[in-house]
Amino acid sequence: MAGGDEVKEVRNQQVLARDYISAIPEESDMYLNTSSTIKLRVPDDDDCQEAMLLKNLYLSCDPYMRGVKHSDEAASSTLEDRIVFFATDKPITGYGVAKVLESANPKFKQGDLVWGMTGWEEYSIITATDSLFKIHNTDVPLSYYTGILGMPGMTAYAGFYEVCSPKKGETVYVSAASGAVGQLVGQFAKLSGCYVVGSAGTKEKVDLLKKKFGFDGAFNYREEPDLDAALKRFFPEGIDIYFENVGGKMLDAVLPNMRVHGRIAVCGMISQYNLEQPEGVHNLMHLVIKQARMEGFLVFNYYHLYGKFLEMVLPAIKEGKITYVEDVVEGLESAPAALIGLFAGRNVGKQVVLVSRE
Amino acid sequence: MAGGDEVKEVRNQQVLARDYISAIPEESDMYLNTSSTIKLRVPDDDDCQEAMLLKNLYLSCDPYMRGVKHSDEAASSTLEDRIVFFATDKPITGYGVAKVLESANPKFKQGDLVWGMTGWEEYSIITATDSLFKIHNTDVPLSYYTGILGMPGMTAYAGFYEVCSPKKGETVYVSAASGAVGQLVGQFAKLSGCYVVGSAGTKEKVDLLKKKFGFDGAFNYREEPDLDAALKRFFPEGIDIYFENVGGKMLDAVLPNMRVHGRIAVCGMISQYNLEQPEGVHNLMHLVIKQARMEGFLVFNYYHLYGKFLEMVLPAIKEGKITYVEDVVEGLESAPAALIGLFAGRNVGKQVVLVSRE
Repeated sequence: MAGGDEVKEVRNQQVLARDYISAIPEESDMYLNTSSTIKLRVPDDDDCQEAMLLKNLYLSCDPYMRGVKHSDEAASSTLEDRIVFFATDKPITGYGVAKVLESANPKFKQGDLVWGMTGWEEYSIITATDSLFKIHNTDVPLSYYTGILGMPGMTAYAGFYEVCSPKKGETVYVSAASGAVGQLVGQFAKLSGCYVVGSAGTKEKVDLLKKKFGFDGAFNYREEPDLDAALKRFFPEGIDIYFENVGGKMLDAVLPNMRVHGRIAVCGMISQYNLEQPEGVHNLMHLVIKQARMEGFLVFNYYHLYGKFLEMVLPAIKEGKITYVEDVVEGLESAPAALIGLFAGRNVGKQVVLVSRE
Repeated sequence: MAGGDEVKEVRNQQVLARDYISAIPEESDMYLNTSSTIKLRVPDDDDCQEAMLLKNLYLSCDPYMRGVKHSDEAASSTLEDRIVFFATDKPITGYGVAKVLESANPKFKQGDLVWGMTGWEEYSIITATDSLFKIHNTDVPLSYYTGILGMPGMTAYAGFYEVCSPKKGETVYVSAASGAVGQLVGQFAKLSGCYVVGSAGTKEKVDLLKKKFGFDGAFNYREEPDLDAALKRFFPEGIDIYFENVGGKMLDAVLPNMRVHGRIAVCGMISQYNLEQPEGVHNLMHLVIKQARMEGFLVFNYYHLYGKFLEMVLPAIKEGKITYVEDVVEGLESAPAALIGLFAGRNVGKQVVLVSRE
């Protein structure tokens, strides 16, 4: 770009982190900055050789977006994708859908739509553009690229198909089943000829599971004084596959109900994230008795399968074989409460923040 | 056998269970019956069509030999090998090495040596003879067929090679490392070019690990106030493979020290067996962070590999590349204390009971 050009400077509202956060964020850990501005161009800086200027359209609230404890931080330093989501006075970092306003990366051009890591603000300069995916199919809601067609979709796909290797006729249990990932795991399980039961925390969500997503059974875990009895009611012959989203007491109830050679894909443990110390899990000996496998996974290692995933899921969406429920709030100012609500289970379906329609 | 033959009747001392046991056995749960006799022939009964009369030479004390709680019993009904080890006024059931005195099973003949499930008595009539293995190699100590060449050996082999798929240069941690299984896992790890550290509960055992079994490092877990710090000392870069024999606090300390794509083979959890409720394990979220796998296994499903296993381990024994330490007590009357001692960690090496030399 010619240095002498007059560059347009516009308002750039941002959701900033107040402090370094070491736990589940609270609303007061974030604040809206309405006075910030941005020059609508990719800077000439050295670290911007492949940078892009994005206009953010949708932002995603995901359970992984929480503070990292010092010990976890050390542990996660071995990960390829060590991301700090909350850095003091910086915009929150998360997945989103955006439009390319300018690109120094030759793989993208102005007007392209992309999804991937962006900032909680109206416009973002992204230097790590390799982690952005170009959106080719726009005959589906764009917000789907924060959910069914984005990271949560790939998470459900990788965890269910790659980690659990489901077989027709097997029994599948999904916790947090109406969430961004769970609702898809349940529908994938039905498409694979499995029997699937999900749990969630409100009647509304349980109804969604049964009426909208076609689960064979569903229950409200808050209304079950005895989780073991609830699982035995739905799985008298036991569970072949457990898609683990919650951890703690639920995992402890599941373990004795696993079948021989059962598989547990550990996607997350959202019930544990706001505890000082995670709950103890007592029934791990059942892994031996049942010769069962429990495997943690991160979606980052499965993105090479994204093309294959789209080939399966796009037709399924268009033919109405898979449906997806989103909980969309409007405006950056609504984003902090939406993120907090996720950890309290307030969202119904995938939590999305609409920043701009185009 | 012709019905009119005079059949020799001899003394048959037995270790009997006093009652149905639902926990770790105590010495008072067993008693020696010195007044029993047995006719030295296979009975003509319908259930003895393929039965054999065995003279027991060695009996094996193994950690799995404990009472089965009612809930576990229901759970284990899906297993092929549901065995009640303690039935009131019946001889304890366990692995042993025996000589065939008479066989109605055409696969075996008088004079054969076998290993497999037998009774804690001088002579046994075995009806389930399919679970007995014929011993072909007698140029090793016969007692080895209760250990390195029997079930514990196959357990170490299956758990380490089949469940953990070790690669040269990986780091391996073994708990209860001087036991019947652990001492072999450590030596297999060294043969595979791994770095291996073991833990045990006495100085004597720790010395064995380092001096006799060639572990790269070893520690006494009872003398480590901080297990996490101990593991970090021996594994500054983390653990690729954990061979789990103890459970509880040790597992909780191991989880944060696992490396990315680490594997935990769950063989047993001996520290938990005598607790009313097993200890809680809090650090399971590290399975996700490390994309690690934890898998329970039972040796019964791996016996088809026994031939392959012998091909590897017999030459290694003869060439002195693998060594094996046994803790042999003499006489059936010593068997109850030997079994109890196992759960208190009193044995040094594989616990064997010598019943008869021939």
